[in-house]
This record gives sequence, structure tokens and C-alpha cells, in this order.
Amino acid sequence: MKFTVSEIAQMLDGTIVGDEKITINSAAKIEEGRPGCISFLANSKYEPFIYTTQSSAVIVNHDFAPKKEIAATLIYVNNAYTAFTILLEEYQKRLSNEKTGVEQPSFIGENSQVGQHCYRGAFSYIGKNCSIGESVKIYPNTYLGDNITIGDYSVIHPGVRIYDNTVIGKNCTIFANTVIGGDGFGFAPQADGTYKTIPQLGNVVIEDDVSIGSNSTIDCATMGSTIIRKGVKIDNLVQIAHNVEIGKNTVIAAQSGVSGSTTVGEQCIIAGQVGITGHITIANNTKIGAQSGLGKSIKKEGLSLSGSPARDLTEHLRSMALVRRVPAIEERLKDLESKREISDFQEEN
Amino acid sequence: MKFTVSEIAQMLDGTIVGDEKITINSAAKIEEGRPGCISFLANSKYEPFIYTTQSSAVIVNHDFAPKKEIAATLIYVNNAYTAFTILLEEYQKRLSNEKTGVEQPSFIGENSQVGQHCYRGAFSYIGKNCSIGESVKIYPNTYLGDNITIGDYSVIHPGVRIYDNTVIGKNCTIFANTVIGGDGFGFAPQADGTYKTIPQLGNVVIEDDVSIGSNSTIDCATMGSTIIRKGVKIDNLVQIAHNVEIGKNTVIAAQSGVSGSTTVGEQCIIAGQVGITGHITIANNTKIGAQSGLGKSIKKEGLSLSGSPARDLTEHLRSMALVRRVPAIEERLKDLESKREISDFQEEN
Amino acid sequence: MKFTVSEIAQMLDGTIVGDEKITINSAAKIEEGRPGCISFLANSKYEPFIYTTQSSAVIVNHDFAPKKEIAATLIYVNNAYTAFTILLEEYQKRLSNEKTGVEQPSFIGENSQVGQHCYRGAFSYIGKNCSIGESVKIYPNTYLGDNITIGDYSVIHPGVRIYDNTVIGKNCTIFANTVIGGDGFGFAPQADGTYKTIPQLGNVVIEDDVSIGSNSTIDCATMGSTIIRKGVKIDNLVQIAHNVEIGKNTVIAAQSGVSGSTTVGEQCIIAGQVGITGHITIANNTKIGAQSGLGKSIKKEGLSLSGSPARDLTEHLRSMALVRRVPAIEERLKDLESKREISDFQEEN
Repeated sequence: MKFTVSEIAQMLDGTIVGDEKITINSAAKIEEGRPGCISFLANSKYEPFIYTTQSSAVIVNHDFAPKKEIAATLIYVNNAYTAFTILLEEYQKRLSNEKTGVEQPSFIGENSQVGQHCYRGAFSYIGKNCSIGESVKIYPNTYLGDNITIGDYSVIHPGVRIYDNTVIGKNCTIFANTVIGGDGFGFAPQADGTYKTIPQLGNVVIEDDVSIGSNSTIDCATMGSTIIRKGVKIDNLVQIAHNVEIGKNTVIAAQSGVSGSTTVGEQCIIAGQVGITGHITIANNTKIGAQSGLGKSIKKEGLSLSGSPARDLTEHLRSMALVRRVPAIEERLKDLESKREISDFQEEN
Repeated sequence: MKFTVSEIAQMLDGTIVGDEKITINSAAKIEEGRPGCISFLANSKYEPFIYTTQSSAVIVNHDFAPKKEIAATLIYVNNAYTAFTILLEEYQKRLSNEKTGVEQPSFIGENSQVGQHCYRGAFSYIGKNCSIGESVKIYPNTYLGDNITIGDYSVIHPGVRIYDNTVIGKNCTIFANTVIGGDGFGFAPQADGTYKTIPQLGNVVIEDDVSIGSNSTIDCATMGSTIIRKGVKIDNLVQIAHNVEIGKNTVIAAQSGVSGSTTVGEQCIIAGQVGITGHITIANNTKIGAQSGLGKSIKKEGLSLSGSPARDLTEHLRSMALVRRVPAIEERLKDLESKREISDFQEEN
Repeated sequence: MKFTVSEIAQMLDGTIVGDEKITINSAAKIEEGRPGCISFLANSKYEPFIYTTQSSAVIVNHDFAPKKEIAATLIYVNNAYTAFTILLEEYQKRLSNEKTGVEQPSFIGENSQVGQHCYRGAFSYIGKNCSIGESVKIYPNTYLGDNITIGDYSVIHPGVRIYDNTVIGKNCTIFANTVIGGDGFGFAPQADGTYKTIPQLGNVVIEDDVSIGSNSTIDCATMGSTIIRKGVKIDNLVQIAHNVEIGKNTVIAAQSGVSGSTTVGEQCIIAGQVGITGHITIANNTKIGAQSGLGKSIKKEGLSLSGSPARDLTEHLRSMALVRRVPAIEERLKDLESKREISDFQEEN
């Protein structure tokens, strides 16, 4: 997508100094600018770059007074940083709104309804009895099973797999190749050493404003629902097992995993490569450090945990430090022992 | 899929009290019931819920005597829990048997054979010289390369990728977006710092009754076969490297990884996020705790291991406890030192 | 693909002893040979197997003198191991060159160019304004967005998802279901507890000779580029976050993750399940052991690190050993304390 500087200035209610007809097709940091890019200057620390930047345009604050000649076109606004953010959002919104209509071949089963202004990419598959809201985008090569509901403005990226009976809210984004609603990992051990599959008949419910990264997996419940509450943000390669519930606005970074039937509270922050055991409850506002392993319920809200097994962060750091004190302790002990021996020797004599 | 209470009662050899024409389309825990659901009551602890449940029908034991009025239709059987399990299995079986035939467009290469009662979904791709057994289900958007064999009743979920020469047994289930038979990670370092790719010409052999979760990866062997033995159950996001062999009925939980040329024994249980190094052998019946890192062969059968590096569980727990004793040790040492100083002082005087 | 022994001998400049018309369709270790396979014998330790191997042909050194009768056809060459490697490479090259042309249905958007001798598999999707080099293979069920560049001889395996504006060099291989260019995980916390999505407008740049395994994820930059330098080898299920740069010839094993804005040097070796924090810099030639967690920049080149938090390997091993010394320290302390008590008792009396 391309804009002229003139269109951008209008969008941001800004004033142009320089060529207003230049076209902009991308954004860049001021120090990494290339022709066709727009940058911003808010922090005076970066001012030197504005005299050398390759960007075609730079958004600056109203009070910016150049000390040398500048090649780029300038757009003066009240707050350069905010204006830049607004521009990026607008850009992404328009970009995403470009896609509508149905590409062929694509597949849609009987009794499935698709709302207005939707996009259905080529080789996308929608099963039976699905209800797809308005302005939903279903990218190419996706699979939706039967009886699926997707709310307005949600975006299903290429290669996403959504199993039967999944419910997805409004304004959700599911990135490429993520799998929603595969069977929970449930097997009953038999007397002969084999395992019998426990039927997994529940579903996954994803509320509004949820974002899930690429190549993640969210299993369906054995019965009932695996639930991802409103506003949750999940990164790439994350595993959410059956019957888990993730509370409102909780954030989970890449490669973390939550085992079956665990309930994670609201507003938690779970860093990368964290493992959480099954059948526990984690209080609201809990923070869990990268690579931690959490094996017990956390009842108190607002704790910061770290380590495997995860403990209170302060305690964890103290424990790490303790190990480093062992050599000194050993030295002191040796010293005492040698004195003791001298003392013993003296006493004996 | 829908059943009437009457059909269900017949299936379970049960007796109906209430409306036998109600239709059931899902199952739920008695405390989470909704209209259209069937639940069961086996444990008297849950009896209060039967008087308030929203489920349309409840399976109960023959000796159940209601203390109040119940809105739901009751189905009396000998063992409510067993009957419920049978029902779920039957439900899942029928559901899965619903899919047969070929959806279009789909692709099948020359000399590939597909058995009777199979399902081939839209946008599924089967290469050349493949041999697909009876009642196999190949969901939409899957890819099968050339010379692949799949046994009867196996199910290949959407987005699964199966590379050339893979052999899959009977009654296997491969969940969405899992990749079977990608190249092993083998590169020979060269004098100039670059790496030369080592050709990976082997394959993957998966025996009968194996289940593999979503978004997992099983690499082909350099030569010979990467082998997953009969009855193995693998969860989501698991990595099995080239030339690995996983023994019969072994279970591997989510996000674990087994490095190249390692042999895992039979009936092992490997928890989540475990890492196992390459070129080792693990004895039968080994249990490995979550997030453990196993770096050495395990020769003795039946051990429980934990930690990174993984050790005998008891030893691991003792070692974790030791660290916690360091502060106390330091205190006692301080105490001794202060007495020593007093004593030195006394001796000096 | 099949070769006669005669064709193979010609390729390797070898001399045949035995039936030159036998056809070979696979390779195997000499001890695992099957009819139709070719093996090699370089190390005399394996000589006993040549008398019993089921392989149809064996490549041997010129100086090999059989002590018994051999059923397999022999191909004499100067260096059996090198010859075997050359054969495997040639085999894989020819195999991969077999695929050309366009299978239908497949999708290509306006203004996209595809070079000569390319393969585009069925159900593959190419968006608008893409530039695909010569002899590129795009396997079935892949998705390429808009404005994507792919260099000559690169191979895009089934199910790979490549987002808009990605640049991929020559001779790259991207294995099945890997996702390139999904949004970086960037959310700005708001006063009401929700998170606002930070637009991710950058791209991913992958230089020449890069290999990326299956089910991995490489996020696009917020602005600018996430960069994978020439010769990098990445395994399965690896996470590379936004604005990361991986230096030339660095190798990253399965299930490892690199957080946002981190720069990894050249010729580094990162083992499996490693976690690397964001916004740090790692010097060239750094080696990081399996399951390590790296939280700080590494400025000195050539270090070997291990543990979580990762430290110098020697230091890490010493620290592991220290914990094991705590019981002995406690014993010695107890001993001293008991003597002290005796001594106290003596002094008091």
C-alpha cells in the first residue's frame, strides 16, 4: 500500500515542509531509513540522524528547528511519537481491510453462514453448520471443521486448523498454523501395558480480543470447554492442554506450556519456555520468569516467581546465591577445623 | 450427531424414567450441564447437582432413589460411569465414521491406491505410489508425498505433512499440522566455517495404535528408519530427531524432545518439556519428570528421574533440599566461629 | 528413483565385481542392508557384516580382499566412505530435480513472476507482486503472501507459511509447516489492564544457504528486518522473535528460542531447548549447552556456556558439584560442633 506525504499529513493533521507528492510505502527507524520510508523524530538524542537519514519523510514535533539542511520531507505535528503510532495503526488497518471476497477454489459445507465483507482465501475449508461473523478474514489453506462460530472482525491466518464446535469471539487473531481444539492428551493405562484413548468431547472457547501466535496448540476439553478469556495474548509454539482456563488479559510468551485442568488467573504474565503442571490454580497478577517450572497452586495474588521448581523470585535469587557461597563456607570450615586441631593439640599437651 | 434418549437407553441396555423422545447432541459434567447434554451420576457426592442440572438426561445407577423432583430424563443402568464411557466411545466412533468419500478438489498421484470406505478431504494431496488402507481418513489440506503406506483405520488430521517413504500402521491418529519425515538435522562442518548438508535418505516407520498430537515433528533417519513402536502416545509440539526409536507403549508429553539416534525403551513415561540427548539408550519403564534434561544412558529399568541433569528422583529432591540448608549451615558456622574467637581470646589471655 | 550398479560404478569411477545389472533404490548401513540397497565398507571393524549383508551392492576400498564368499555385488573405489557420500548427494539432487512444472489447482496473484524450471505444487498459493527465482520448488499446500522474493534453487516444503514482504535468498530450504514473518509479540499495556497491539510492519530477511526445520516460527520485525544470515542452520520447533539477527553459519538445535531484538553472533552453536532473553548481544563462536537459559550479553568470543542462568561451562559444572558437597560440609560442621561442646564443657569445668 502506498500513501503520498500529502495524504499522511492530512491523516495526522500535520504541516508539510518539502515535497508533498513523494510516495511512502513503508516505515523505518530514522537511523535505518530507506527511500520510500517514513520515520519520526521525538527524542533529541536521535536528531543527528535526521540530517543523514535515507527516509523520504520524517514526522517531527512542532518545535523542531533544523540546524542543517535536511533531504527528507518533514511533517510537523503536535506529538511526533503518537502521530507515528497512529499512522502505523491506520496503515495496518487499511492493509488488512484490503482483503475481501472469495478466492477459488475454496470449500464451504452445508448450512454454514458467512457474514458481510468477509475474505475467504483459496484452498480454505469451512465445514458444516459454521457461523462466521462480519468482516472476518479466513486466509488461504485454513481448515475449519463443523459447528464453529467466529465473531466479527476476527482474522484466521493461513494454515490454522480449527476443530469442530470451537467458539471464537470478536476481534481475535489466530496466526499461521496454530491448531485449536485437537484432542486432549488423555489415555487410560490398561492391565496389558497398552493405553486406551479417553474420548475428548469438549470444545475450545476463545473470548473477544484474543491473539494467538503461530504454531501454537490449544486442546479441546475432555468434557466442557478449554477457555481462553477476553484479551489474552499468546505467543508462538505455546501449548494449552485440555480443560485449562486462561484468565482475562493474561500474556503467555513463546514455547510455554500449561498442563491439563489448570486455571491461570487474570492479568498474569508468563515468560518464555515456562512449564505449568496440571490441576492447579494460579492467582491473578502472578508473574512467572522464563524457563520456570510451576508445580503448585499459587493462592496469593501478585507474586513474582522464578526457577524450576518456581519459587518467589527473591527466594529463588537468594538460593542461587547460596550455592555460590558454598566454597567460602568450606574455606571457613577448613579454617575452623585447622584451629580446632591446633587447639586439640594444645589441650592434649 | 444427535440421538434420542430412547436410542441411548437401547444402546446401554437401560430403563428410562421421563421423556424418551428428547434429543441429545453433547455430553457434560452434571454440574455444567446444558439443554441437549447427557450427564451421569455415579458418586453420591454429586447427587445435589441432579436436582438442578440443565442437562436433558442423566445416566444413573439402578439403586438411585431421587429425594426430590428431577427435571432431566433418567436412564437407569447397572453402572452409570461405565455406561457413560461406553456412550462417549460409541459417539466418537460414529462421529468419526461419518466421513467417507472424496471431496473436490483433491489430488492423487499416479499408481496410488486408496482402500474402501476412506475419506479424502478437499485440498488433500497424495503423491505417487502410495498405498492407503481401508477406512482411512485423510482430512482436508494434508500432504502425503510419494511411496507412503498407511494402515487400515488410521486418521490423518488437517494439515499433517508426511514425507516420502513413510510407513504408518493401523489405527494410528496423527493430529493437525504434525510433520512426519522431514530431514534430520545433520550438517558437516567445513574448514571455511560453512556447513555441508548430510543427505537424509532414511524414512519414518510408525507401528500400529500410535497417536501423535498437533504440531509435532518426527524426522526421517539419515539411513534406515526412525521408529515409533506399537502403542506409543505422543503429545503436541514434541520433537523426535533422526534415527530415534521409541519403544512400545511409551508416552511422551507436550514440548519434549528426543535427540538423534537415541533409543527410548518400552512403557516409559516422559513428562512435558523434557530434553533427551542424542546417542543414548533408556531402559524400559523409565519415568522422567517434567523439564528434566537427560544426558546419559539409563541401564536399570523402572527408575524415576528428575532434574537437569536428570538424576534419580530421591537424589534430586535431596539435592534441592540441600541448597535450602545452606543458610542454616552458615549460621551454625558463624556461631562456631564466634565461639572460636572467644575461645581464642580466652586462650590468648 | 532407481540406478543400476553399472550406472553407480560409472558415477563413482569404480570397478564392479559381481552382477552389474542389479538395480539399487535405496541406501543402508551394511548391518541393516536389504535387497535393493547399497552400502559401504570403510572401517575393517564392520568387515564381518559384508559376508552376511542383505544389501544388493557394497562400495569397498581398492585394497579390500574378501576372506569368504560375498553375495552382494562389490564396487571398488579409492575411498569407499567419500564415494558413498558423493552417491547420496547425487541421489538426493536428482530426486529433488525430478519435480518441475505446475500442478493444478494452484493459485498465483497478479504481477507475480516465477523463474524457469520451478515446481509449484497443487493447492500452493502465491500472492501478488512476488518474485520467485529459477529452479525454486514450492511444494503443495504452501502459502506465500504478497511482495515476497525467493532466490534460485530454494525449496519451500509443504505447509510453509510466508508472510508479506519476506525476502529469502538462494539455496535455502524451509521445511514443512514453518511460519516465516508472523507478527512479533508486541503489546502495550493499557491503564485498564488490556493490551494494545503494536503494529508489526517490518519483515524477515533470510540470506543464502539457510536451512530451517519443520514447525519453526520466525517473526517479522516491528520495523526494519528480522535477519537470518548466510549459512545459518535452524532445526525444528525453534522460535526466533521480532528484530532478532542470527549471525553467519550459526546453528540452532530443536525447540530453542531467541527473544526479541537479540543479536546472535557468527559461528555460534546453540543446542536444543535453549532460551535466550531479549535485547542482548552474543559474541561470535559462542557455544550454549542444551536447556540453558541465557540472560546477559556475552562479549568475549568463543565461550562455552551452560545452565539456567547460563554461565561458563567450567563454572557451571563446579557449581553443580558444590551442591553435592553440602552433606559432607554439614557432617564436618556437626563434628566440629560436638567437639566444641566437649571443649566448652571442659572449659566450664
